Amino acid sequence: MVGYGFMGRTHSHAFRTVPQFFDVPYRPVLKTICARTAEKAAAFAGNWGYESSTSDWRQLVEDPDIHLVDIASPNDTHAEIAIAAARAGKMVMCEKPLGRNAAESQAMVKAVADAGVANMVWYNYRRVPAVTLARQFADEGKFGKVFHYRAKFLQDWTISPELPQGGQGLWRLDLAVAGSGVTGDLLAHTIDTALWLNGPIEEVTAVTETFIKERKHNLTGRVEPVGIDDASLVLARFRNGSLGAFEATRYARGHKALYTLEMNGEHASVLWDLHDLHRLQYFDHRDEGRARGWRSIHVTDGDHPYMGRWWVPGLHIGYEHSFIHQAADFLAAAAEGRAASPTFAEALQTDLVTDAILKSAAGRRWVKV
Amino acid sequence: MVGYGFMGRTHSHAFRTVPQFFDVPYRPVLKTICARTAEKAAAFAGNWGYESSTSDWRQLVEDPDIHLVDIASPNDTHAEIAIAAARAGKMVMCEKPLGRNAAESQAMVKAVADAGVANMVWYNYRRVPAVTLARQFADEGKFGKVFHYRAKFLQDWTISPELPQGGQGLWRLDLAVAGSGVTGDLLAHTIDTALWLNGPIEEVTAVTETFIKERKHNLTGRVEPVGIDDASLVLARFRNGSLGAFEATRYARGHKALYTLEMNGEHASVLWDLHDLHRLQYFDHRDEGRARGWRSIHVTDGDHPYMGRWWVPGLHIGYEHSFIHQAADFLAAAAEGRAASPTFAEALQTDLVTDAILKSAAGRRWVKV
Amino acid sequence: MVGYGFMGRTHSHAFRTVPQFFDVPYRPVLKTICARTAEKAAAFAGNWGYESSTSDWRQLVEDPDIHLVDIASPNDTHAEIAIAAARAGKMVMCEKPLGRNAAESQAMVKAVADAGVANMVWYNYRRVPAVTLARQFADEGKFGKVFHYRAKFLQDWTISPELPQGGQGLWRLDLAVAGSGVTGDLLAHTIDTALWLNGPIEEVTAVTETFIKERKHNLTGRVEPVGIDDASLVLARFRNGSLGAFEATRYARGHKALYTLEMNGEHASVLWDLHDLHRLQYFDHRDEGRARGWRSIHVTDGDHPYMGRWWVPGLHIGYEHSFIHQAADFLAAAAEGRAASPTFAEALQTDLVTDAILKSAAGRRWVKV
Amino acid sequence: MVGYGFMGRTHSHAFRTVPQFFDVPYRPVLKTICARTAEKAAAFAGNWGYESSTSDWRQLVEDPDIHLVDIASPNDTHAEIAIAAARAGKMVMCEKPLGRNAAESQAMVKAVADAGVANMVWYNYRRVPAVTLARQFADEGKFGKVFHYRAKFLQDWTISPELPQGGQGLWRLDLAVAGSGVTGDLLAHTIDTALWLNGPIEEVTAVTETFIKERKHNLTGRVEPVGIDDASLVLARFRNGSLGAFEATRYARGHKALYTLEMNGEHASVLWDLHDLHRLQYFDHRDEGRARGWRSIHVTDGDHPYMGRWWVPGLHIGYEHSFIHQAADFLAAAAEGRAASPTFAEALQTDLVTDAILKSAAGRRWVKV
Repeated sequence: MVGYGFMGRTHSHAFRTVPQFFDVPYRPVLKTICARTAEKAAAFAGNWGYESSTSDWRQLVEDPDIHLVDIASPNDTHAEIAIAAARAGKMVMCEKPLGRNAAESQAMVKAVADAGVANMVWYNYRRVPAVTLARQFADEGKFGKVFHYRAKFLQDWTISPELPQGGQGLWRLDLAVAGSGVTGDLLAHTIDTALWLNGPIEEVTAVTETFIKERKHNLTGRVEPVGIDDASLVLARFRNGSLGAFEATRYARGHKALYTLEMNGEHASVLWDLHDLHRLQYFDHRDEGRARGWRSIHVTDGDHPYMGRWWVPGLHIGYEHSFIHQAADFLAAAAEGRAASPTFAEALQTDLVTDAILKSAAGRRWVKV
Repeated sequence: MVGYGFMGRTHSHAFRTVPQFFDVPYRPVLKTICARTAEKAAAFAGNWGYESSTSDWRQLVEDPDIHLVDIASPNDTHAEIAIAAARAGKMVMCEKPLGRNAAESQAMVKAVADAGVANMVWYNYRRVPAVTLARQFADEGKFGKVFHYRAKFLQDWTISPELPQGGQGLWRLDLAVAGSGVTGDLLAHTIDTALWLNGPIEEVTAVTETFIKERKHNLTGRVEPVGIDDASLVLARFRNGSLGAFEATRYARGHKALYTLEMNGEHASVLWDLHDLHRLQYFDHRDEGRARGWRSIHVTDGDHPYMGRWWVPGLHIGYEHSFIHQAADFLAAAAEGRAASPTFAEALQTDLVTDAILKSAAGRRWVKV
Repeated sequence: MVGYGFMGRTHSHAFRTVPQFFDVPYRPVLKTICARTAEKAAAFAGNWGYESSTSDWRQLVEDPDIHLVDIASPNDTHAEIAIAAARAGKMVMCEKPLGRNAAESQAMVKAVADAGVANMVWYNYRRVPAVTLARQFADEGKFGKVFHYRAKFLQDWTISPELPQGGQGLWRLDLAVAGSGVTGDLLAHTIDTALWLNGPIEEVTAVTETFIKERKHNLTGRVEPVGIDDASLVLARFRNGSLGAFEATRYARGHKALYTLEMNGEHASVLWDLHDLHRLQYFDHRDEGRARGWRSIHVTDGDHPYMGRWWVPGLHIGYEHSFIHQAADFLAAAAEGRAASPTFAEALQTDLVTDAILKSAAGRRWVKV
Repeated sequence: MVGYGFMGRTHSHAFRTVPQFFDVPYRPVLKTICARTAEKAAAFAGNWGYESSTSDWRQLVEDPDIHLVDIASPNDTHAEIAIAAARAGKMVMCEKPLGRNAAESQAMVKAVADAGVANMVWYNYRRVPAVTLARQFADEGKFGKVFHYRAKFLQDWTISPELPQGGQGLWRLDLAVAGSGVTGDLLAHTIDTALWLNGPIEEVTAVTETFIKERKHNLTGRVEPVGIDDASLVLARFRNGSLGAFEATRYARGHKALYTLEMNGEHASVLWDLHDLHRLQYFDHRDEGRARGWRSIHVTDGDHPYMGRWWVPGLHIGYEHSFIHQAADFLAAAAEGRAASPTFAEALQTDLVTDAILKSAAGRRWVKV
């Protein structure tokens, strides 16, 4: 495990907890945690039960007892570590986005392909049971021809001009580290799910904005221009003929992490919202006319995706469970030599879309993916 | 028309507007408005287009050009006027509750029966399209055996101890005029709908409370004991074996007029809420398992009750439209010599239940209806 | 009154009902209804109480007893009638959109300006109390700097390929009559409200789509190409620096007339939805931290816009009341020689935006308004 | 740990996970799991990391290495094990309800008091962050005088007459094992929270019903009378003068585990719902009039109870986290020699209320607690 921040915790928790609830073919052993400072790595190891810790990720790559390297460190480290791990024959899991841009991601895809190692990217929202259920509905053809797909990811945590950029906990505001702003962060989630539920995107037109133009930089101590995009709005055409509308922002007062998605088909529609993650809103035009309505499906039953492993109907699981599900699926697939979605190659598709979005916003024109 | 207050306005509006939207067999002519003070009656007549006005309701009863007397004045006037109007051979409509108690109501029922005149009580919520739809579902047997019925009517407008009792606009706090507090006012609505949707109630146990024990009385100018009940809570057994829970209060901070009802049957359930009156929540267990959910039916389609007469799907009507619907149904029934529900006799059933509730609360015991 | 369809009814109802509820300086007299066929006009006049009827709109313009001409007929008739009425010195009210395109609208604006007659366009959603309240909040500076504005108007009534185009009730699908599809119909509503709440739009990029390419035409009886846009998606920049996202479609299964708008400011946000029109969602960041939440304001109190004229707190009004409010405001303004918003000149601003949107969609590029 | 069912899993998970997220003074060591059959106990031990397993709970009580005995087995085992564990000087935690009736509970309270051992009952809903926040609001006096408290716990899992009673997974339908039906199961949760948020209950009147009178019994193989109550409805008076309404049922079609509670005070009200457990609805009358509304507080911020230990604002935790929080509070209190609420003595208060409810229902009269 590389990284001990927010994602280091969710990934560690996932590997630690998955065998209690899923019949996984392997019981993961938490071997080594790597973090920039040795003391923090050691403390994290103690708390989470890692056998050892290090401040040099190369030790993980070289350790023959380690079979899987999981990368949860900032975006600018993904490519180098993943490529090295793949070359060393390790399975590689990587927090999203894969690279800071599609070029980095392409190199990573090539590395895992050349090495023939199992690989996966943590686009965790695919494994929220309500979202997985939407995919099942799509697979079953419930929607018919799709006309519209729309998604938003709205936050409000960067509105204050007093907030600095860069450094621990704030690297997402630092262009050099993050690669982009909300486009590669929040918007990438909405694109990944869209590709999964509704197929390829062919072209986009977009606008981005940086509302606060300069902020103090934690690493230099100086007020510096802000390089990232604060908001990113996109119109898109999918290959299946449907129209897409996407938006991500960190300036939507009142929304903490409101990821909503909606798909409108000929026969049915579906709507989901991360703030109420167990609810899948579903409308089926084939219902009896007078009794038609959006169904608020409380996705907590034993026959709902993943839920049979947890408690009893009506009781919730949380955000972190999507990571546990992803770990379970990865381990099951790895045991059978199957790829577990989304692979590096699939995640690259999202990067190609976000690259096109940034290019469109810069050039004020439609861009083919 | 007797009464020019809140209900005088809704009734006048209903009669004035019904022919534009419904194919009614009669075009109502607004003949005479009666109110306690001649000037107010005249002003109301001018505004609403009544041909004349009076401060003596006996003039209405005696006028041969008047075929229908509609009583929208305070509760203590209902019985006398209704009985006189019936004896004069007029059709009689009466705002709810029918009498201040079941004894008064019984006399009224006898009067209209003896006279053989058309009659109706303005329990208007039966004609909110979503509530009417619930009744259609019940008639179609969608629910199967019913286990539970629950209803609440919550308001918060009397919480301030500064609010006086009695007189214009506040007669609902005056026991002598109103007959009871929330039991005959708000709770009576919940009972009427329950009897209509779920059949007779056989016995009740109840508790009432008067939170503020004395208030200034507008008519005497003195601080006087408050005689009405501020809150009324009831457990009930219906004849069909289901259990009922009812509550009405004017001390539920945050609720203006939150009338909610819910019915749980073997196969299906339904839930409605006056604050969002166009939504009928409906759950059908016969839906496919993974896709089951409470359907939020937006009751605005052309095939929903009454809605074909109004605008286009998705667009709302308001509170007053329930009165227009009731007027339309009354006129249609009267033309055919049919009774339009709820008749005086049906409304008496509600009074028998509310009388039993008040008796139960006073005696701290179960009371048969 | 010209036109006896959906809008002929809402306008007639508004003028007929406004004096009962508002202290208007004039009591409107319904003089003459004009419709294409004399029989239908006569029937409408009988039902609604018009003194006379005609099938020639020029009679209205020439009648010296008529002071106000209200145009509720299809879009292709607006300009000619409005210009003639203005030249005849009548006050002119016109259903939206003003013209089929900005060029028509400009001629209409010139006509009323030259004639110096009072004029107004029925963008009725400004007078839904919850929307008016949002505007009051904006005027009071509750939002601070605005970052985002987004609106959608979603319907699903044209999904069936069996639906024909053109003729009575379906002229909105006929390009020659309507001028455009959803862009001038549903999207225009969202643009009007946006300009009113958030100020001018400077530039747009857009995509439109016609999902069903040909339909039977009711007037020719032949299958013909569909000229209108079925869906219209827009990204926009407002003059105040905020970003806009707009979408209108008639292919969003499950939505009947879901007009939603949201505005995110530095300090506060607001969200509204036509399907639950009495609710204004409001978030204020200045609330105490732990107790912050989106407030569901049930806009039915006496101190809410227009609501003091209606019933009691908690009780709803409907869609048509927005027209009554608009009539009340127009009459009050006319009596004082003031303009009542939105005037023809203001409505032209919306047409300039929708023209830019259609141009952008055709040219696949950003277009300045 | 005694018991490996639903509650054995939630408790084990809590102890296993608490140190990763909370700074607890002790790191719990999972020593021994006890279950009725040795094989199941061994399998559970293997999966969850217990050091050993047994089918005889006395081994736990006698083991000097075990400091805490946690009882998650069916209700009929609680008293005997808890009393023995207390006498052996162990800390004791017990799943709710404490005993099958107040008499059993009283003996248990006496045992832990005599032994002076730390003790706690798993009324876990107190530690759902939104519920804890409601308690903080109460402690801060936000509500003023309370008028109403109402709670419901609605399920629908026993509607089918084919469902048998008794035995593994179905002991909750077996009167001898469970002590009562929904009254001691679901209703007890609502009473515990009510006592915690709104103080003591003084008297109750209640009705219970067994809708399906006989079911096949899994242990005897015969169709036998059903002894438990399927539904339990209660009216109550609290010591603070407020009125209570409680209901629990397993026959509310469409509700899986809908525990809702609402408290209406002079100044503010609060409403919570287990199906959307992160939302606390809060209404504050002191807000500016026109902008008053029920606030939907998304209880996921760092300053919300317990949430600072988890992810980032907007992201959810699940049902099981309430147990983790309870374990954390228990360990922290135990280290300091403080009692952690609810103790056995506090849980007894709930049993006294549920006993009064059953007595009232049997006797059809008000019963003092």
